[in-house]
Amino acid sequence: LQKVSEWTIHRLSTYHRLLSEFESEGREYISSHELAHRAGATPAQVRRDLSCFGTFGTKGRGYFVADLSSMITSILGIDRDWRVALVGAGRLGSALFSYKEFRRRNFHIVAVFDSDKSKIGKHWADVEIEHPDALKAVVSKHQVDIGVIAVPSDTAQSVANAMVDAGIKAILNFAHRKLFVPDGVALRNVNMAMELEALSYAMSRNRRLR
Amino acid sequence: LQKVSEWTIHRLSTYHRLLSEFESEGREYISSHELAHRAGATPAQVRRDLSCFGTFGTKGRGYFVADLSSMITSILGIDRDWRVALVGAGRLGSALFSYKEFRRRNFHIVAVFDSDKSKIGKHWADVEIEHPDALKAVVSKHQVDIGVIAVPSDTAQSVANAMVDAGIKAILNFAHRKLFVPDGVALRNVNMAMELEALSYAMSRNRRLR
Repeated sequence: LQKVSEWTIHRLSTYHRLLSEFESEGREYISSHELAHRAGATPAQVRRDLSCFGTFGTKGRGYFVADLSSMITSILGIDRDWRVALVGAGRLGSALFSYKEFRRRNFHIVAVFDSDKSKIGKHWADVEIEHPDALKAVVSKHQVDIGVIAVPSDTAQSVANAMVDAGIKAILNFAHRKLFVPDGVALRNVNMAMELEALSYAMSRNRRLR
Repeated sequence: LQKVSEWTIHRLSTYHRLLSEFESEGREYISSHELAHRAGATPAQVRRDLSCFGTFGTKGRGYFVADLSSMITSILGIDRDWRVALVGAGRLGSALFSYKEFRRRNFHIVAVFDSDKSKIGKHWADVEIEHPDALKAVVSKHQVDIGVIAVPSDTAQSVANAMVDAGIKAILNFAHRKLFVPDGVALRNVNMAMELEALSYAMSRNRRLR
Protein backbone atom coordinates (compact mmCIF):
# COMPACT_ATOMS: atom_id res chain seq x y z
CA LEU A 1 0.00 0.00 0.00
CA GLN A 2 1.29 3.41 -0.99
CA LYS A 3 1.99 5.97 1.72
CA VAL A 4 -0.61 8.70 1.40
CA SER A 5 0.20 12.18 2.66
CA GLU A 6 -1.99 13.86 5.28
CA TRP A 7 -2.58 16.61 2.75
CA THR A 8 -4.09 14.21 0.27
CA ILE A 9 -6.55 13.07 2.94
CA HIS A 10 -7.52 16.65 3.70
CA ARG A 11 -8.11 17.28 0.02
CA LEU A 12 -10.26 14.14 -0.23
CA SER A 13 -12.48 15.62 2.51
CA THR A 14 -12.70 18.81 0.48
CA TYR A 15 -13.46 16.96 -2.77
CA HIS A 16 -16.17 15.02 -0.95
CA ARG A 17 -17.92 18.22 0.13
CA LEU A 18 -17.58 19.74 -3.33
CA LEU A 19 -19.02 16.61 -4.98
CA SER A 20 -22.15 17.06 -2.82
CA GLU A 21 -22.36 20.61 -4.11
CA PHE A 22 -22.03 19.46 -7.73
CA GLU A 23 -24.65 16.79 -7.07
CA SER A 24 -27.10 19.33 -5.66
CA GLU A 25 -26.51 21.41 -8.79
CA GLY A 26 -27.68 18.41 -10.82
CA ARG A 27 -24.27 17.56 -12.30
CA GLU A 28 -23.64 13.92 -13.24
CA TYR A 29 -20.06 14.24 -14.48
CA ILE A 30 -17.29 16.68 -13.63
CA SER A 31 -13.77 17.17 -14.91
CA SER A 32 -10.65 17.19 -12.74
CA HIS A 33 -10.36 20.81 -13.88
CA GLU A 34 -13.67 21.84 -12.35
CA LEU A 35 -13.05 19.92 -9.14
CA ALA A 36 -9.55 21.41 -8.85
CA HIS A 37 -10.83 24.92 -9.46
CA ARG A 38 -13.32 24.78 -6.60
CA ALA A 39 -10.85 23.02 -4.30
CA GLY A 40 -8.11 25.61 -4.77
CA ALA A 41 -5.86 22.90 -6.20
CA THR A 42 -4.48 22.02 -9.65
CA PRO A 43 -6.00 19.37 -11.98
CA ALA A 44 -2.76 17.39 -11.76
CA GLN A 45 -3.00 17.38 -7.98
CA VAL A 46 -6.60 16.10 -8.12
CA ARG A 47 -5.58 13.28 -10.45
CA ARG A 48 -2.53 12.44 -8.32
CA ASP A 49 -4.59 12.38 -5.12
CA LEU A 50 -7.22 10.06 -6.57
CA SER A 51 -4.64 7.79 -8.24
CA CYS A 52 -3.44 6.81 -4.73
CA PHE A 53 -6.64 4.83 -4.35
CA GLY A 54 -7.37 3.36 -7.79
CA THR A 55 -8.56 4.36 -11.22
CA PHE A 56 -11.40 6.82 -11.41
CA GLY A 57 -12.99 8.72 -14.26
CA THR A 58 -13.37 8.10 -17.97
CA LYS A 59 -11.29 9.81 -20.65
CA GLY A 60 -13.22 12.70 -22.10
CA ARG A 61 -16.15 12.44 -19.69
CA GLY A 62 -14.46 13.07 -16.36
CA TYR A 63 -15.62 11.65 -13.06
CA PHE A 64 -19.08 10.23 -12.41
CA VAL A 65 -20.02 12.36 -9.41
CA ALA A 66 -22.07 9.78 -7.47
CA ASP A 67 -19.46 7.03 -7.84
CA LEU A 68 -16.51 9.20 -6.90
CA SER A 69 -18.40 10.53 -3.90
CA SER A 70 -19.22 7.08 -2.57
CA MET A 71 -15.65 5.86 -3.18
CA ILE A 72 -14.30 8.75 -1.10
CA THR A 73 -16.91 8.05 1.61
CA SER A 74 -15.50 4.56 1.86
CA ILE A 75 -11.83 5.66 1.76
CA LEU A 76 -12.40 8.20 4.54
CA GLY A 77 -14.26 5.59 6.58
CA ILE A 78 -17.31 7.81 7.03
CA ASP A 79 -19.72 5.10 5.82
CA ARG A 80 -20.17 4.11 9.49
CA ASP A 81 -20.74 5.83 12.84
CA TRP A 82 -17.83 6.86 15.05
CA ARG A 83 -18.10 7.30 18.79
CA VAL A 84 -16.28 10.26 20.28
CA ALA A 85 -15.29 11.16 23.86
CA LEU A 86 -14.68 14.84 24.58
CA VAL A 87 -12.40 15.88 27.45
CA GLY A 88 -12.82 19.52 28.44
CA ALA A 89 -16.25 21.06 29.00
CA GLY A 90 -15.16 24.69 28.74
CA ARG A 91 -16.01 27.19 25.99
CA LEU A 92 -14.30 25.24 23.23
CA GLY A 93 -15.70 21.89 24.43
CA SER A 94 -19.17 23.38 24.51
CA ALA A 95 -18.79 24.75 20.98
CA LEU A 96 -17.54 21.38 19.73
CA PHE A 97 -20.38 19.53 21.45
CA SER A 98 -22.96 21.66 19.67
CA TYR A 99 -21.15 21.65 16.31
CA LYS A 100 -23.78 20.08 14.07
CA GLU A 101 -21.41 19.15 11.27
CA PHE A 102 -19.85 16.40 13.44
CA ARG A 103 -23.12 14.51 13.70
CA ARG A 104 -23.93 15.15 10.06
CA ARG A 105 -20.64 13.38 9.16
CA ASN A 106 -21.40 10.47 11.55
CA PHE A 107 -19.19 11.54 14.46
CA HIS A 108 -21.17 11.29 17.70
CA ILE A 109 -19.97 12.72 21.00
CA VAL A 110 -21.19 10.07 23.45
CA ALA A 111 -19.20 11.10 26.54
CA VAL A 112 -17.94 14.38 28.05
CA PHE A 113 -15.36 14.76 30.82
CA ASP A 114 -14.17 17.63 32.95
CA SER A 115 -12.28 17.76 36.24
CA ASP A 116 -14.19 20.89 37.37
CA LYS A 117 -16.48 19.73 40.20
CA SER A 118 -19.06 22.40 39.39
CA LYS A 119 -19.56 20.81 35.93
CA ILE A 120 -19.61 17.12 36.88
CA GLY A 121 -23.12 15.69 36.94
CA LYS A 122 -24.53 18.34 34.61
CA HIS A 123 -26.03 17.27 31.31
CA TRP A 124 -25.34 18.46 27.79
CA ALA A 125 -28.32 17.14 25.82
CA ASP A 126 -28.48 13.55 27.10
CA VAL A 127 -24.76 13.26 27.93
CA GLU A 128 -23.72 13.59 31.58
CA ILE A 129 -20.40 15.32 32.28
CA GLU A 130 -18.13 12.96 34.23
CA HIS A 131 -14.79 13.15 36.01
CA PRO A 132 -11.82 12.09 33.83
CA ASP A 133 -11.16 9.27 36.31
CA ALA A 134 -14.13 7.51 34.72
CA LEU A 135 -12.56 7.69 31.23
CA LYS A 136 -11.37 4.09 31.01
CA ALA A 137 -14.68 2.61 32.15
CA VAL A 138 -16.76 4.88 29.92
CA VAL A 139 -14.59 4.32 26.84
CA SER A 140 -14.95 0.61 27.25
CA LYS A 141 -18.70 0.75 27.98
CA HIS A 142 -19.51 3.07 25.06
CA GLN A 143 -16.88 1.61 22.72
CA VAL A 144 -15.38 5.02 22.07
CA ASP A 145 -13.22 5.26 18.93
CA ILE A 146 -11.95 8.83 19.05
CA GLY A 147 -10.86 11.18 21.85
CA VAL A 148 -11.08 14.96 21.51
CA ILE A 149 -8.85 17.07 23.76
CA ALA A 150 -10.24 20.53 24.56
CA VAL A 151 -8.39 21.26 27.82
CA PRO A 152 -5.73 23.91 28.58
CA SER A 153 -2.32 23.07 27.16
CA ASP A 154 -0.69 22.25 30.52
CA THR A 155 -2.97 19.25 31.10
CA ALA A 156 -3.29 18.07 27.49
CA GLN A 157 -0.49 15.48 27.65
CA SER A 158 -1.90 13.80 30.76
CA VAL A 159 -5.32 13.64 29.10
CA ALA A 160 -3.72 12.10 26.01
CA ASN A 161 -1.97 9.50 28.23
CA ALA A 162 -5.25 8.62 29.90
CA MET A 163 -6.94 8.25 26.51
CA VAL A 164 -4.19 5.94 25.26
CA ASP A 165 -4.40 3.97 28.52
CA ALA A 166 -8.15 3.63 27.99
CA GLY A 167 -7.54 2.06 24.58
CA ILE A 168 -8.42 5.01 22.35
CA LYS A 169 -6.65 4.76 18.99
CA ALA A 170 -7.30 8.20 17.55
CA ILE A 171 -6.95 11.62 19.18
CA LEU A 172 -7.91 15.09 17.98
CA ASN A 173 -6.00 17.75 19.92
CA PHE A 174 -7.16 21.36 20.15
CA ALA A 175 -4.63 22.33 22.83
CA HIS A 176 -1.66 24.37 21.66
CA ARG A 177 0.99 21.88 22.65
CA LYS A 178 2.92 19.12 20.93
CA LEU A 179 1.62 15.80 22.24
CA PHE A 180 3.36 12.44 22.28
CA VAL A 181 1.44 9.24 21.68
CA PRO A 182 2.68 5.70 21.03
CA ASP A 183 2.89 4.20 17.53
CA GLY A 184 -0.47 2.88 16.47
CA VAL A 185 -2.37 5.85 17.89
CA ALA A 186 -3.40 8.42 15.28
CA LEU A 187 -3.03 12.04 16.39
CA ARG A 188 -4.18 15.23 14.66
CA ASN A 189 -3.56 18.72 15.97
CA VAL A 190 -6.02 21.47 15.14
CA ASN A 191 -4.77 24.99 14.89
CA MET A 192 -7.47 27.48 14.00
CA ALA A 193 -4.95 30.30 13.59
CA MET A 194 -3.73 28.60 10.39
CA GLU A 195 -6.93 29.60 8.66
CA LEU A 196 -6.39 33.23 9.59
CA GLU A 197 -2.85 32.97 8.27
CA ALA A 198 -4.20 31.93 4.88
CA LEU A 199 -6.15 35.20 4.90
CA SER A 200 -3.23 37.35 6.04
CA TYR A 201 -1.18 35.72 3.27
CA ALA A 202 -3.83 36.66 0.70
CA MET A 203 -4.05 40.23 1.93
CA SER A 204 -0.28 40.69 2.12
CA ARG A 205 0.12 39.32 -1.40
CA ASN A 206 -2.55 41.67 -2.76
CA ARG A 207 -0.71 44.56 -1.19
CA ARG A 208 2.57 43.41 -2.78
CA LEU A 209 0.87 43.11 -6.19
CA ARG A 210 -0.59 46.62 -6.04
CA LEU B 1 3.97 35.90 -9.93
CA GLN B 2 3.25 32.18 -9.79
CA LYS B 3 -0.17 31.03 -8.61
CA VAL B 4 0.29 29.37 -5.23
CA SER B 5 -2.19 26.72 -4.13
CA GLU B 6 -4.11 27.09 -0.87
CA TRP B 7 -2.53 23.84 0.23
CA THR B 8 0.95 25.27 -0.09
CA ILE B 9 -0.05 28.15 2.19
CA HIS B 10 -1.42 25.73 4.77
CA ARG B 11 1.81 23.79 4.67
CA LEU B 12 3.81 27.01 5.11
CA SER B 13 1.85 27.62 8.33
CA THR B 14 2.73 24.10 9.42
CA TYR B 15 6.42 24.48 8.51
CA HIS B 16 6.49 27.74 10.45
CA ARG B 17 5.27 26.04 13.61
CA LEU B 18 7.68 23.14 13.15
CA LEU B 19 10.61 25.52 12.65
CA SER B 20 9.84 27.03 16.08
CA GLU B 21 9.97 23.52 17.49
CA PHE B 22 13.33 22.84 15.84
CA GLU B 23 14.58 26.18 17.12
CA SER B 24 13.55 25.39 20.68
CA GLU B 25 15.40 22.08 20.32
CA GLY B 26 18.53 24.12 19.56
CA ARG B 27 18.74 23.15 15.88
CA GLU B 28 20.41 25.62 13.52
CA TYR B 29 19.98 23.72 10.23
CA ILE B 30 17.43 21.18 9.11
CA SER B 31 17.01 19.14 5.95
CA SER B 32 13.90 19.10 3.77
CA HIS B 33 13.68 15.45 4.82
CA GLU B 34 13.34 16.26 8.51
CA LEU B 35 10.89 19.07 7.90
CA ALA B 36 8.80 16.88 5.59
CA HIS B 37 8.77 14.04 8.08
CA ARG B 38 7.29 16.15 10.87
CA ALA B 39 4.87 17.89 8.51
CA GLY B 40 3.41 14.65 7.15
CA ALA B 41 4.60 15.64 3.66
CA THR B 42 7.32 14.48 1.26
CA PRO B 43 10.74 16.17 0.88
CA ALA B 44 9.89 16.95 -2.76
CA GLN B 45 6.72 18.69 -1.63
CA VAL B 46 8.62 20.80 0.91
CA ARG B 47 11.12 21.87 -1.77
CA ARG B 48 8.33 22.57 -4.27
CA ASP B 49 6.38 24.65 -1.73
CA LEU B 50 9.38 26.77 -0.82
CA SER B 51 10.51 27.19 -4.44
CA CYS B 52 7.29 29.17 -5.08
CA PHE B 53 8.83 31.99 -3.07
CA GLY B 54 12.53 31.96 -3.87
CA THR B 55 15.66 29.99 -3.24
CA PHE B 56 16.21 28.68 0.26
CA GLY B 57 18.73 26.33 1.79
CA THR B 58 22.29 25.38 0.96
CA LYS B 59 23.26 22.13 -0.76
CA GLY B 60 24.43 19.65 1.83
CA ARG B 61 23.54 21.79 4.85
CA GLY B 62 19.80 22.18 4.43
CA TYR B 63 17.82 25.17 5.61
CA PHE B 64 19.02 27.71 8.15
CA VAL B 65 16.16 27.50 10.62
CA ALA B 66 16.06 31.16 11.74
CA ASP B 67 16.19 32.53 8.17
CA LEU B 68 13.57 30.19 6.79
CA SER B 69 11.29 30.95 9.72
CA SER B 70 11.52 34.71 9.26
CA MET B 71 11.01 34.39 5.48
CA ILE B 72 7.79 32.43 6.07
CA THR B 73 6.68 34.99 8.67
CA SER B 74 6.97 37.63 5.99
CA ILE B 75 5.29 35.54 3.26
CA LEU B 76 2.33 34.76 5.52
CA GLY B 77 2.08 38.42 6.49
CA ILE B 78 2.21 37.66 10.21
CA ASP B 79 5.00 40.16 10.84
CA ARG B 80 2.31 42.73 11.67
CA ASP B 81 -0.90 42.93 13.69
CA TRP B 82 -4.27 42.11 12.14
CA ARG B 83 -7.57 43.46 13.45
CA VAL B 84 -10.47 41.04 13.49
CA ALA B 85 -14.25 41.53 13.87
CA LEU B 86 -16.23 38.54 15.13
CA VAL B 87 -19.92 38.22 14.26
CA GLY B 88 -21.74 35.68 16.45
CA ALA B 89 -21.35 35.69 20.24
CA GLY B 90 -22.68 32.17 20.82
CA ARG B 91 -20.73 29.12 22.00
CA LEU B 92 -18.40 29.05 19.02
CA GLY B 93 -17.87 32.82 19.05
CA SER B 94 -17.05 32.67 22.73
CA ALA B 95 -14.54 29.85 22.18
CA LEU B 96 -12.91 31.77 19.33
CA PHE B 97 -12.72 34.96 21.39
CA SER B 98 -10.83 33.18 24.14
CA TYR B 99 -8.62 31.17 21.78
CA LYS B 100 -5.16 32.32 22.85
CA GLU B 101 -3.37 31.17 19.72
CA PHE B 102 -5.03 33.94 17.68
CA ARG B 103 -3.41 36.67 19.75
CA ARG B 104 -0.12 34.79 19.88
CA ARG B 105 -0.07 34.89 16.06
CA ASN B 106 -0.96 38.63 16.00
CA PHE B 107 -4.67 38.31 15.22
CA HIS B 108 -6.65 40.54 17.59
CA ILE B 109 -10.42 40.40 17.94
CA VAL B 110 -11.26 44.09 18.42
CA ALA B 111 -15.04 43.95 17.87
CA VAL B 112 -17.83 41.45 18.57
CA PHE B 113 -21.36 41.54 17.15
CA ASP B 114 -24.57 39.66 17.87
CA SER B 115 -28.20 40.40 17.05
CA ASP B 116 -29.38 38.84 20.34
CA LYS B 117 -30.58 41.76 22.49
CA SER B 118 -29.69 39.95 25.72
CA LYS B 119 -26.03 39.94 24.64
CA ILE B 120 -25.70 43.48 23.29
CA GLY B 121 -23.92 45.82 25.72
CA LYS B 122 -22.18 42.98 27.58
CA HIS B 123 -18.39 42.91 27.62
CA TRP B 124 -15.99 40.16 26.71
CA ALA B 125 -12.72 41.31 28.26
CA ASP B 126 -12.67 44.98 27.14
CA VAL B 127 -14.75 44.43 23.99
CA GLU B 128 -18.42 45.42 24.07
CA ILE B 129 -20.85 43.25 22.12
CA GLU B 130 -22.70 45.39 19.57
CA HIS B 131 -25.59 44.99 17.17
CA PRO B 132 -24.54 44.01 13.61
CA ASP B 133 -26.10 47.28 12.39
CA ALA B 134 -23.02 48.97 13.84
CA LEU B 135 -20.66 46.84 11.73
CA LYS B 136 -19.82 49.41 9.07
CA ALA B 137 -19.08 52.19 11.56
CA VAL B 138 -17.03 49.94 13.83
CA VAL B 139 -15.02 48.41 10.98
CA SER B 140 -14.11 51.84 9.77
CA LYS B 141 -13.34 53.19 13.26
CA HIS B 142 -11.18 50.20 14.30
CA GLN B 143 -9.71 49.63 10.84
CA VAL B 144 -10.78 45.99 10.85
CA ASP B 145 -8.96 43.75 8.35
CA ILE B 146 -10.65 40.38 8.83
CA GLY B 147 -14.22 39.28 9.56
CA VAL B 148 -15.00 36.00 11.32
CA ILE B 149 -18.47 34.51 10.85
CA ALA B 150 -19.68 32.35 13.75
CA VAL B 151 -23.44 32.59 13.23
CA PRO B 152 -25.96 29.87 12.25
CA SER B 153 -25.81 28.91 8.59
CA ASP B 154 -29.10 30.57 7.60
CA THR B 155 -27.80 34.05 8.42
CA ALA B 156 -24.18 33.57 7.33
CA GLN B 157 -24.62 34.98 3.80
CA SER B 158 -26.25 38.18 5.02
CA VAL B 159 -23.44 38.65 7.54
CA ALA B 160 -20.91 38.14 4.75
CA ASN B 161 -22.73 40.74 2.61
CA ALA B 162 -22.64 43.22 5.48
CA MET B 163 -18.92 42.59 5.98
CA VAL B 164 -18.20 43.16 2.30
CA ASP B 165 -20.34 46.30 2.38
CA ALA B 166 -18.32 47.52 5.37
CA GLY B 167 -15.12 47.17 3.35
CA ILE B 168 -13.74 43.96 4.88
CA LYS B 169 -11.43 42.19 2.41
CA ALA B 170 -10.96 38.84 4.16
CA ILE B 171 -13.56 36.54 5.74
CA LEU B 172 -13.19 33.39 7.79
CA ASN B 173 -16.43 31.40 7.76
CA PHE B 174 -17.29 28.80 10.40
CA ALA B 175 -20.91 28.36 9.25
CA HIS B 176 -21.65 25.21 7.28
CA ARG B 177 -22.78 26.94 4.14
CA LYS B 178 -21.22 27.93 0.85
CA LEU B 179 -20.84 31.71 0.84
CA PHE B 180 -20.54 34.02 -2.13
CA VAL B 181 -18.29 37.08 -2.00
CA PRO B 182 -17.11 39.40 -4.79
CA ASP B 183 -13.70 39.10 -6.44
CA GLY B 184 -11.07 40.77 -4.35
CA VAL B 185 -12.47 39.46 -1.07
CA ALA B 186 -10.58 36.48 0.33
CA LEU B 187 -12.78 33.77 1.86
CA ARG B 188 -11.80 30.67 3.85
CA ASN B 189 -14.26 28.11 5.14
CA VAL B 190 -13.42 26.17 8.27
CA ASN B 191 -14.77 22.70 8.65
CA MET B 192 -13.71 21.04 11.88
CA ALA B 193 -15.21 17.71 10.83
CA MET B 194 -12.39 17.38 8.28
CA GLU B 195 -9.93 16.75 11.09
CA LEU B 196 -12.08 13.92 12.41
CA GLU B 197 -12.22 12.48 8.91
CA ALA B 198 -8.43 12.30 8.83
CA LEU B 199 -8.70 10.13 11.95
CA SER B 200 -11.47 7.92 10.61
CA TYR B 201 -9.36 7.47 7.48
CA ALA B 202 -6.38 6.37 9.58
CA MET B 203 -8.46 3.93 11.61
CA SER B 204 -10.21 2.47 8.57
CA ARG B 205 -6.89 1.99 6.81
CA ASN B 206 -5.39 0.26 9.85
CA ARG B 207 -8.33 -2.11 9.88
CA ARG B 208 -7.86 -2.84 6.18
CA LEU B 209 -4.14 -3.51 6.73
CA ARG B 210 -4.72 -5.94 9.58
